[in-house]
Amino acid sequence: MRQVFQNELHEVQDRLVEISDSVATIMEKASAAFLGGDVAKADEAIALSETNEEKALALDELVIKILARQSPVARDLRILVSALRMSASLERMGALAGHIASIARYRYPGSAVPASLRSTFEEMGALDIKLANKVTEVLRNTDVDQARAIQAEDERVDELHRNVFDVVLADDWKENAMFTVDVTLASRYFERFADHVVDISSKVSYLTTGEWNESE
Amino acid sequence: MRQVFQNELHEVQDRLVEISDSVATIMEKASAAFLGGDVAKADEAIALSETNEEKALALDELVIKILARQSPVARDLRILVSALRMSASLERMGALAGHIASIARYRYPGSAVPASLRSTFEEMGALDIKLANKVTEVLRNTDVDQARAIQAEDERVDELHRNVFDVVLADDWKENAMFTVDVTLASRYFERFADHVVDISSKVSYLTTGEWNESE
Repeated sequence: MRQVFQNELHEVQDRLVEISDSVATIMEKASAAFLGGDVAKADEAIALSETNEEKALALDELVIKILARQSPVARDLRILVSALRMSASLERMGALAGHIASIARYRYPGSAVPASLRSTFEEMGALDIKLANKVTEVLRNTDVDQARAIQAEDERVDELHRNVFDVVLADDWKENAMFTVDVTLASRYFERFADHVVDISSKVSYLTTGEWNESE
Repeated sequence: MRQVFQNELHEVQDRLVEISDSVATIMEKASAAFLGGDVAKADEAIALSETNEEKALALDELVIKILARQSPVARDLRILVSALRMSASLERMGALAGHIASIARYRYPGSAVPASLRSTFEEMGALDIKLANKVTEVLRNTDVDQARAIQAEDERVDELHRNVFDVVLADDWKENAMFTVDVTLASRYFERFADHVVDISSKVSYLTTGEWNESE
């Protein structure tokens, strides 16, 4: 029974890694679409974010089946409950990347990114892709130091997010309201995406170090 | 054992009702702060959204303990997994209302709402409060017709959200970028709040009617 359960936990982990990997791909495409006004990539990102939602729901069903069959307690139960939460985060990350792609889609053939914010969004997009790839790696290797390092990297995304507002609210911001709306929402989506990366990696640290209340 | 379990499920339900009730209060205060530039209410909403997060985490711990002690299957397991998701939604709703209050806080003593959007935001805030109160009611009585009715009411919030963009992107929008940023984010927060109401009420319908895959 124990071996069956271990195999099932591995299956859950493999699926989390796979979903996280496709979330990184969705963000790559969404970011390229947003920065380059690339409508084909925007459509791909939007389609992939729908598949991503289905994958996350299928994983939830698998976790519920394992809970029913194995009745795990203590750490094993925590792993499965955390898997449900990580799945929810990965689903949201795909949706947020999809929203960024939708902004690009909506503005096509124009661009949603004014020149004054191009480098900020380039860095933000690159960071979100990097963070998504790192979280995939951490889900695979459950390396707690790497998981903790990710949590620090999110700070730069928050800084860039604040920078977007500094630029938009400065006296020399001359773009029209459409640009203001687009960059406000996109920046929020990039920032929330990174928040979910932090949530997932803090769950990996917590499961690996066992720093939780085992009172049940 | 069965009676113990039923009592525990009631405890989970009571806590969900209690959290949902305070979420409605947070939105009432946040909405009043946002529309009236009331800094005291904004501070109350922000403080309550922090307490709300703690309450949601405490509920999650209770659910995990019940899962460990009772090893439920089938419908009982679904109820508890759904409780975890509803708790996550209620936590986010509190946070979103807190964000609305923070916008009001930040603009004080000015207002974040330009005259041209006042009636839209008044309706949006009133609707979100109404939806939060209805979802509390549905969590209490698990009335499936009422749960389904809520899902339709969210449409008006989406319509108001689109209306904010129509106003902001119209040629006669003359407000500065600060107003544009504030109303864009606030509208997004009001809309996401209502999305979570729909998620919770669809879980209530689903648990009450038993329309799920019982294959495990």
